[in-house]
Amino acid sequence: MRSVSVIGIGETKMGKLADFWLRDMIKEAGEKAISDANIDRNQIEALYMGNFASQYLCLQGHMGPLASEVLNLGNIPTVRTEGACASGGLAFRQAYIAVAAGLYDIVLVGGAEKMTHQPTEVVTTGVAGAADYNLEVSIGATFPSIFAMLAQRYFYEYGDVREQMAMCAVQNHDNAMLNPDAQMQKRITVDQVKAGFPVAYPLTVYDCSLVTDGSAFVVLAATDVAEKLSKKRIVEIVGSGHAGDTLTIATKKSLTTLYATVHAAKQAYQMSGLKPSDIDLAEVHDCFTITQILNIEDLGFFEKGKGGRAVMEGKTAASGQIPINVSGGLKAKGHPIGATGLSQIYEIVTQLRGEAGARQLKKANIGLTHNLGGTAATCVVNIFRGR
Amino acid sequence: MRSVSVIGIGETKMGKLADFWLRDMIKEAGEKAISDANIDRNQIEALYMGNFASQYLCLQGHMGPLASEVLNLGNIPTVRTEGACASGGLAFRQAYIAVAAGLYDIVLVGGAEKMTHQPTEVVTTGVAGAADYNLEVSIGATFPSIFAMLAQRYFYEYGDVREQMAMCAVQNHDNAMLNPDAQMQKRITVDQVKAGFPVAYPLTVYDCSLVTDGSAFVVLAATDVAEKLSKKRIVEIVGSGHAGDTLTIATKKSLTTLYATVHAAKQAYQMSGLKPSDIDLAEVHDCFTITQILNIEDLGFFEKGKGGRAVMEGKTAASGQIPINVSGGLKAKGHPIGATGLSQIYEIVTQLRGEAGARQLKKANIGLTHNLGGTAATCVVNIFRGR
Repeated sequence: MRSVSVIGIGETKMGKLADFWLRDMIKEAGEKAISDANIDRNQIEALYMGNFASQYLCLQGHMGPLASEVLNLGNIPTVRTEGACASGGLAFRQAYIAVAAGLYDIVLVGGAEKMTHQPTEVVTTGVAGAADYNLEVSIGATFPSIFAMLAQRYFYEYGDVREQMAMCAVQNHDNAMLNPDAQMQKRITVDQVKAGFPVAYPLTVYDCSLVTDGSAFVVLAATDVAEKLSKKRIVEIVGSGHAGDTLTIATKKSLTTLYATVHAAKQAYQMSGLKPSDIDLAEVHDCFTITQILNIEDLGFFEKGKGGRAVMEGKTAASGQIPINVSGGLKAKGHPIGATGLSQIYEIVTQLRGEAGARQLKKANIGLTHNLGGTAATCVVNIFRGR
Repeated sequence: MRSVSVIGIGETKMGKLADFWLRDMIKEAGEKAISDANIDRNQIEALYMGNFASQYLCLQGHMGPLASEVLNLGNIPTVRTEGACASGGLAFRQAYIAVAAGLYDIVLVGGAEKMTHQPTEVVTTGVAGAADYNLEVSIGATFPSIFAMLAQRYFYEYGDVREQMAMCAVQNHDNAMLNPDAQMQKRITVDQVKAGFPVAYPLTVYDCSLVTDGSAFVVLAATDVAEKLSKKRIVEIVGSGHAGDTLTIATKKSLTTLYATVHAAKQAYQMSGLKPSDIDLAEVHDCFTITQILNIEDLGFFEKGKGGRAVMEGKTAASGQIPINVSGGLKAKGHPIGATGLSQIYEIVTQLRGEAGARQLKKANIGLTHNLGGTAATCVVNIFRGR
């Protein structure tokens, strides 16, 4: 399989985009990515679209041809991928495989989700489809309740990290202050998080990611093609991994080590020949604050049980040894579900190109993305290096 | 890219499976395919799942890990693909690419849909998500009405084929009589079809495919691996094509030539070095009877405008020059949407192995599948040859 690189990126602002329907978001983010790649749209050979909940929230399936029509891509093949909150990461993974295989030279990958037009209870029901309806949702489990159980088990096995979870939210909000695309732009404190409206113990509303409208796109090209086309720094995919786990929480081997992450990360590290300490920055899937702590441990940045302490010591802050979610993450940039995996890549490429403006990190040559679906039942990890 | 073959197949009976929920159907069809392939489940490296409407009809997304859990596949990567009624074909296509690329040696591909537990109006709304909600569905268009417009346009351009459409239904019902998995097992007449309950002129209820519960799975392997493993006739994928079109009917270049089919077929023929006259049998996407006539023309079996006459002359019957839908097709075998593309492959492999019992064709060495999504906005065509 041959080398593949990212040559174009685009995203909408994240948030409550009242005047933007799916078509409008896709058009804005898709056109930005095509323009950024410095290609003609006729050069695009296939389209991969991540979307999770639009069949329920918008009565709209078949997102591939919808996006192809909006972006005027003709008769190219399209596919929508769905793996809950990892739907965008899966679109990227399938596109990567097809280009690496030599089937296509240039492909477009996008994600979009429209969520804020629905009442909270409808969003909650739609999102709960990422768990098992019969065995979990129908008996009252929702995602906050499931991740609250993971947090409680973590407390039991490794000690209470309530304060450290809150600090994840604080740092992500701090980071989002410098990201113009972020949904949240206000600082919060650890005390505010802990005293927030209770959702499912120990999670308060400040421990939960956001309900977001948004879209993000990237253009992939075979690296040899990219070198001829691109006028910007080429960002090569040097590692890619994809793993899964059972759907239900009752059947997991562990509630505090998420094996889908462990396996996907192992693949990506092996392929790249890199180790966790080689990574300059990472965007990880902080659907809840406890997940961010689990993620930075499962990705090998910190030992199991030590992630919370690392957060408190500032090691994951923008100025720390391994900046996590400098975009603001799902918690503060926002979580437009099917677009999230692509928006993570948008941030890494922006940083690796040195185009991140006020939030630009000094050292940004190797970046990692981690996109998780459901109760860690789907995980895609990618490692990128600027050439 | 290397050669890939089908080494295992399995499907449920199609129909109203009142006691079968998604898990039960997936377990039955998936276990059959694994057993048929003569492999241990630990050899399966990835799972691709086609599903269209379960997020709406069953409040269940994230079908990949659901199926992986049911089939006890551990931490392998999974992805759900969705492209309306071509969701199963897309799963197969992505799996094919990954194995052909050398990423995996053995993968499992499945599709499942649970539909009959919902009232007709709920099914109609869910299925309409394959069209554009804002531009088509919200103003009253449903799939029967859209395909009725295609039929009327065909009548205008090429002459009335009402009788010939009815004959497609008659032949598919005849074929289903010999398929124990088929939902419908009764003969009908041309007069019955024409006098059926009117749905959208010229379509009556007998011109429309069925609402079906069902699941189908196939096991793919790199052909060199398949040769070592398989105790049955290996069925090689010698051609594969995937193309698309705009989502909305208003933006199509033609309503009587479906260009997604034309382009996907062209790719598959070119890759295989075969021409339409080389094909021994085909399973084509007869969501409506008019679609079957369009398909056999767009696939090159008959000239545009001449498909109806060929049907009346018996050329597409099981005893004809190019048997179409010997399984009974979507019309009579049934249309469990996300499983349909895999069930078509099930039939072709069964025929190419000589395992089709009472409906076995005498000449079955090269078979074609054609899976269409929405208003021909997604199309996957595959050509298979027995080795």
